[in-house]
Amino acid sequence: MDQVKVFLDESEIPKQWYNILADMPTPMSPPLHPGTGQPVGPDDLAPVFPMNLIEQEVSTERWIDIPEEVLEKYLLWRPTPLHRARSFEKLLDAPVKIYYKNEGVSPPGSHKPNTAIAQAYYNKAFGIKRLSTETGAGQWGSALSMACQMFGLECRVFMVRVSYEQKPYRRLMMNTWGANCIPSPSDKTEAGKKILAQDPNSPGSLGIAISEAIEDAVMDETARYSLGSVLNHVLLHQTINGLECQKQLEKIGVYPDVVIGCAGGGSNFAGLCLPFVRDKIHGKDISIVAAEPTSCPTMTRGPFAYDFGDTVQMTPLLAMYTLGHDFVPAPIHAGGLRYHGMAPIISHVVKEQIVEARAYDQMETFDAGIKWARTEGYISAPETNHAIAAVVQEAERAKEEGKEKVILFNWSGHGLVDLVAYDDFLSGKLTKYELPEEEIQKSLKLIEGLPKP
Amino acid sequence: MDQVKVFLDESEIPKQWYNILADMPTPMSPPLHPGTGQPVGPDDLAPVFPMNLIEQEVSTERWIDIPEEVLEKYLLWRPTPLHRARSFEKLLDAPVKIYYKNEGVSPPGSHKPNTAIAQAYYNKAFGIKRLSTETGAGQWGSALSMACQMFGLECRVFMVRVSYEQKPYRRLMMNTWGANCIPSPSDKTEAGKKILAQDPNSPGSLGIAISEAIEDAVMDETARYSLGSVLNHVLLHQTINGLECQKQLEKIGVYPDVVIGCAGGGSNFAGLCLPFVRDKIHGKDISIVAAEPTSCPTMTRGPFAYDFGDTVQMTPLLAMYTLGHDFVPAPIHAGGLRYHGMAPIISHVVKEQIVEARAYDQMETFDAGIKWARTEGYISAPETNHAIAAVVQEAERAKEEGKEKVILFNWSGHGLVDLVAYDDFLSGKLTKYELPEEEIQKSLKLIEGLPKP
Repeated sequence: MDQVKVFLDESEIPKQWYNILADMPTPMSPPLHPGTGQPVGPDDLAPVFPMNLIEQEVSTERWIDIPEEVLEKYLLWRPTPLHRARSFEKLLDAPVKIYYKNEGVSPPGSHKPNTAIAQAYYNKAFGIKRLSTETGAGQWGSALSMACQMFGLECRVFMVRVSYEQKPYRRLMMNTWGANCIPSPSDKTEAGKKILAQDPNSPGSLGIAISEAIEDAVMDETARYSLGSVLNHVLLHQTINGLECQKQLEKIGVYPDVVIGCAGGGSNFAGLCLPFVRDKIHGKDISIVAAEPTSCPTMTRGPFAYDFGDTVQMTPLLAMYTLGHDFVPAPIHAGGLRYHGMAPIISHVVKEQIVEARAYDQMETFDAGIKWARTEGYISAPETNHAIAAVVQEAERAKEEGKEKVILFNWSGHGLVDLVAYDDFLSGKLTKYELPEEEIQKSLKLIEGLPKP
Repeated sequence: MDQVKVFLDESEIPKQWYNILADMPTPMSPPLHPGTGQPVGPDDLAPVFPMNLIEQEVSTERWIDIPEEVLEKYLLWRPTPLHRARSFEKLLDAPVKIYYKNEGVSPPGSHKPNTAIAQAYYNKAFGIKRLSTETGAGQWGSALSMACQMFGLECRVFMVRVSYEQKPYRRLMMNTWGANCIPSPSDKTEAGKKILAQDPNSPGSLGIAISEAIEDAVMDETARYSLGSVLNHVLLHQTINGLECQKQLEKIGVYPDVVIGCAGGGSNFAGLCLPFVRDKIHGKDISIVAAEPTSCPTMTRGPFAYDFGDTVQMTPLLAMYTLGHDFVPAPIHAGGLRYHGMAPIISHVVKEQIVEARAYDQMETFDAGIKWARTEGYISAPETNHAIAAVVQEAERAKEEGKEKVILFNWSGHGLVDLVAYDDFLSGKLTKYELPEEEIQKSLKLIEGLPKP
């Protein structure tokens, strides 16, 4: 029997994160202060993030040491296994070998704790007592809840009210890890009170929840805000995954032709792919694919522009692909991919044509996910199914071209608390969704007056 | 940093299951035909199970080869990691080293597919087209659904109606794996129709669901029945876990002083513990603990007697610890431990004092489970929390005695779709439950006239 799984011994776990800023072939446009239009400095961010993380955010060092305390917690579930998807290969009947990195084995079931653990550690080390964050469907909120508990920090999570009510499992996970999960809009913040005054039954939105979390953090000097994607330091922490994966592939003498990840804010994609982006920058012939939803086609239909990271315009201006900070994607089940922008790092490598972005409709992603579950066993998160849809497409192309290919992708998480999504698909409740161009243009109007990268 | 996880390379996966019947120090009482009072023969079981599994059920061969096709599917998630629980050790502050075998990494999240895969394979090899089974909370039904899908068998699962309605996630898992999940009582069987005629709103019970599944199987000669615990061949298939674990411990030069598993029907307990029971029979000084709930104290308060495996008296009489086939345990969240009997193999080694049974109240199990989740990260199944409660107890004893101990237990599954149980505990809805002796005596009255072992 051929090998289908590659483990790393925990002594082989990478001891440093990889910082792509050291290898960027062209300079990135800096974040700008929305008031002055000037690049933001560390002091501008100090009320929001601890200084040790701000330093990481702007660092251009290629390798950054992972603190011993962070490694210790990573070892609760890392190194994660690399699998070969032989049963899925057989079903596809194409000349491809498919490998996947299994990030679903972490306690909350996704890649999110890779940065949650690191952020909790650095905040604790900086003397912070409490973290505040927002969460949509709850993957990030649950990961940060666990991490805060492990480092003795309080954790307050503003969860979009409609998700809080409709998707109780992630909220219950947060409670189990001792966090305080609050439906947003809430009466805990001025931002929340304002919304409630207008509409006491507001279902909430990610934009409102971000405002509440930031306000909650900056009003308390022992607290800071924490974000689960988009920022440089978040992507940095995720690279532990791709670095592990490269060691695993080396063990079996394999190098991929195609590397795939789904992309919402960009962190799980970055985690697996940035170490391969580095190889490509240094001459490797490899294609790297970011899979996004057609209902939120940030990279495939949005411009590369300066825009706010949040709806209520509290963040610096980021140079990124964007659909406009006011864009509200259709309520697809892949909640983690419903973000109007894209991490500046990922946007930059897409703009430089190092990474290719492709969009997939939810129907083809669930079709791929069902095939996956029925061959490989694992039920994927709806987000992850976008990566699997890209794998299917690559396999079909290889078959047409009669070309052998090694495909690697990030299995970013399981879908065991997203099963209602599968039910909707299997019972015919989901449909193909065409996003009208007018809708994109309408929200892009709002950013016309902003500086250009 | 000391090692906290031990992986086996997949080439090291055990190629045979271990059959404890070859090593039993005293003879076991055979299953009896309820009509004749004589030991049942293979032909009596032929309408219910395929002959290749019946042969395994009665085999006394010590080692039984795992078919290549079964190994191939096991490798989708096996070998499972062995972890050291350093963070939990630190919290307990006792002179113990705690190791746990992580069966939660399987696609449905528990040990159940170890036998589901094997049973689906043997039925397929015997020419069967469809399997029928029952499920309570859904762990077993979901595991068998996945296994049937992988071997191209149809799968029909009769799920206790109250669980079907209250716990939709396991049912949705079954659908995702292509199974037909039917709330029981149903109008698909005579047994179901009879119950519905008496009470159209019957919430169902495991006893009724078993009747429906067996009837459904025996009425269709291309179908067979499948059971997820209790029987010899089911326990046999689970031993892959303990055998892997022994190899992992050998790698790090560790041998446990105490081995712990929770026990409902006995299969997850058997999986980890039987290879250690073998060592104990051959002279090893080791204690082996089966943890059951105080609300269903089969081994700690029931007699060793002949009794039916099911409520409606369709099975052979099994020699086992039992609370009486009519016993209805309190509706605790650890649904997998709510069984009136105990696997004959486990009952026998408890009776022979090779294994010690202990009972734990749900309050101490959830308390242990919360401590576990907040240190080790993983949220355990409510069943698994019984094993963790026993670990806590062992650690406290070691502290009192000032004696160093190595504790090993089976982390049989995660609780990500059982989070309502944690919510009930955290919000104070659960209480200590005292089971009145009269209740046990009442249901034991029913078995007074049966043969004695």
